[in-house]
Amino acid sequence: MKKIALLGATGSVGSSVLAVIRDNPGRFAVAGLSARHGGPELAALCREFPEALVAVGDADGAEALRDTLGSGRRLLCGSGAGERLVEEIDADICVAAVSGTAGLGMAFAAARRGMRILLANKEVLVSAGRLFLGAARAGGAEIIPLDSEHSALFQCLEGRAPETVEKLILTASGGPFRDWSAERMALAKPEDALRHPVWKMGPKITIDCATMANKALEVIEASHLFGISIDRIEVLVHRESLIHGLVEFTDGTILAHMGPADMRFPAGFGLFYPERGKKPLRRLDLAGIGQLNFENPPFDRFPLLRLGIEAGKRGERAAAAFNAANETAVELFLAGRIGFAVMAKAVAAAVAAAGTGVFSSLDEVEAAHEKARERAGAGWR
Amino acid sequence: MKKIALLGATGSVGSSVLAVIRDNPGRFAVAGLSARHGGPELAALCREFPEALVAVGDADGAEALRDTLGSGRRLLCGSGAGERLVEEIDADICVAAVSGTAGLGMAFAAARRGMRILLANKEVLVSAGRLFLGAARAGGAEIIPLDSEHSALFQCLEGRAPETVEKLILTASGGPFRDWSAERMALAKPEDALRHPVWKMGPKITIDCATMANKALEVIEASHLFGISIDRIEVLVHRESLIHGLVEFTDGTILAHMGPADMRFPAGFGLFYPERGKKPLRRLDLAGIGQLNFENPPFDRFPLLRLGIEAGKRGERAAAAFNAANETAVELFLAGRIGFAVMAKAVAAAVAAAGTGVFSSLDEVEAAHEKARERAGAGWR
Repeated sequence: MKKIALLGATGSVGSSVLAVIRDNPGRFAVAGLSARHGGPELAALCREFPEALVAVGDADGAEALRDTLGSGRRLLCGSGAGERLVEEIDADICVAAVSGTAGLGMAFAAARRGMRILLANKEVLVSAGRLFLGAARAGGAEIIPLDSEHSALFQCLEGRAPETVEKLILTASGGPFRDWSAERMALAKPEDALRHPVWKMGPKITIDCATMANKALEVIEASHLFGISIDRIEVLVHRESLIHGLVEFTDGTILAHMGPADMRFPAGFGLFYPERGKKPLRRLDLAGIGQLNFENPPFDRFPLLRLGIEAGKRGERAAAAFNAANETAVELFLAGRIGFAVMAKAVAAAVAAAGTGVFSSLDEVEAAHEKARERAGAGWR
Repeated sequence: MKKIALLGATGSVGSSVLAVIRDNPGRFAVAGLSARHGGPELAALCREFPEALVAVGDADGAEALRDTLGSGRRLLCGSGAGERLVEEIDADICVAAVSGTAGLGMAFAAARRGMRILLANKEVLVSAGRLFLGAARAGGAEIIPLDSEHSALFQCLEGRAPETVEKLILTASGGPFRDWSAERMALAKPEDALRHPVWKMGPKITIDCATMANKALEVIEASHLFGISIDRIEVLVHRESLIHGLVEFTDGTILAHMGPADMRFPAGFGLFYPERGKKPLRRLDLAGIGQLNFENPPFDRFPLLRLGIEAGKRGERAAAAFNAANETAVELFLAGRIGFAVMAKAVAAAVAAAGTGVFSSLDEVEAAHEKARERAGAGWR
């Protein structure tokens, strides 16, 4: 039995991880659960996994949860609860599936403890990739990506010599607005942007798909994960989202990873690694599907895609500013305070103001995030 | 410098291998050349590679070649010349690119000598796979497939644990008649069948593509090469011939190998293995290509495809009969003696008459071939 600490247990990736765990009884034990809020979803998970140590980020939520579960159960709560959970838990695998920059401290704790980290929390690598990989190396941690694209690239690259790799190609569905004009997109409402054509995910990442900022974050993430410069990473629009990633080798050969667009596939890959699960929920029938389509990314209509890739090329302070400012812009858009097209302007202002040079600590990263959030909050006016 | 013995030097695979060798000066030395006929093509190669030991299967051809090259050069000639070349040559790699069952003796000689064998001569595995792999194991030979589909599968499987593999999928362009009705195909002339939509190859294999017998041969070949039963090998029609092979794993993941439809790619893979070449002649531009299409194989219109796969399932004597009878049927068709649809009848007669049980020697394989050829020659009447 592999013991799992699941950070972000109530999110969409957390749910996929739990689905795989439930589907393979006797293989995995849930040793820890963390969530931002102590609502009924987390309460249900606490009852389902009575042995799990539980952490709740929001202190009020913890109180409600404590009332539900009774006094016999120990709960960690408040800011830093997830990090404390990672520091004291007995687990083989830490699933880092928190949404956004909120997950940085926990991921660093898992790196320091030398755990196997299944990483879905791409913001960790985007804002603090070099520091995080340094902490993982020092702690002896192993990182297995959980994002479908990065899991795909990981699987294509497995066992291949780095010097044989020419470039990485990340596919993108193009999101709900792939066929919208720039004018129409400018008027898009949150409910339009939340209607993703392929993937069912949380609101932050779904908006990031609509702006294609998500793909820029993924390019930066891939660059850190696989040690490949951003100018050797390409984005390819592929509407069907069945090919998740491709690796081109120096001899012109391409290996492509395909599978149903379902997070339970990369979750299962990470949980079973280096074995493979034996119970796919479904299999691809390529003759039945009939056709796969590919297009160049429409950079002109998706300014956050280009901006994010450029920020990644500029350096880690620009990438962190892009990341945090984008988070703020998405919040403002979801709250109905700014229009869809204004998000890029808010983020651009913050990226332009980002400093140069590298971060020497996670505190510096968080200070830079704070500054970028302020700039983004002001930058759209 | 890797020393290469090239069997079938004037054929289409031989030409691709030579193109890669010429394109990478200083990496490979041509230590041996064999061809069936001693015509001007082989003479030119003998002049280009003055150090190569040369074998010519056809004794008359050898005489002509000797006249061209002068008496200073040693030539092996006549039946068994290719085998003798392999037995005495000093080479690291033997490229087995002879067309048809004529290449069996040479391939077995390379297996006994423990060479690295780049195998394009699929008939060796189809008719004598178990014996050949046994000889390779005993001799310490290593087999790297040169067929584009098998090279693709080899590359997808490289480094993966066999127990994680669910099935292999071989792609097929569908050949020149993929959209023809059975009635129209029955009237097809050799010149119609020789017009392959994607690959430029020799006449035997091009006719095999038109009947899809080639894909049946490849299924049997893959079964031997990768140790996977035929019922776990599928055929998928893919018109663009850019995906050459796919491996489905137990968890539902698929790895697919893509590249331009050009034999210099698998040839280069085999020659450089385990390294990779660094000078692709071109790269795939998926956005430019736009679309990849997939269909189930039209078994009803291509009886040789089904017949070959069934023969492979029945056992090695049926497979050998299919292989040799098909060779005879193709010869009769190319000579204008039988119609396109009659080929399947001729082959079916020979397969039906094939015995059961396994071969205990290459002589038995060759005797079975002889019998199947006679049956096929009579079977269409």
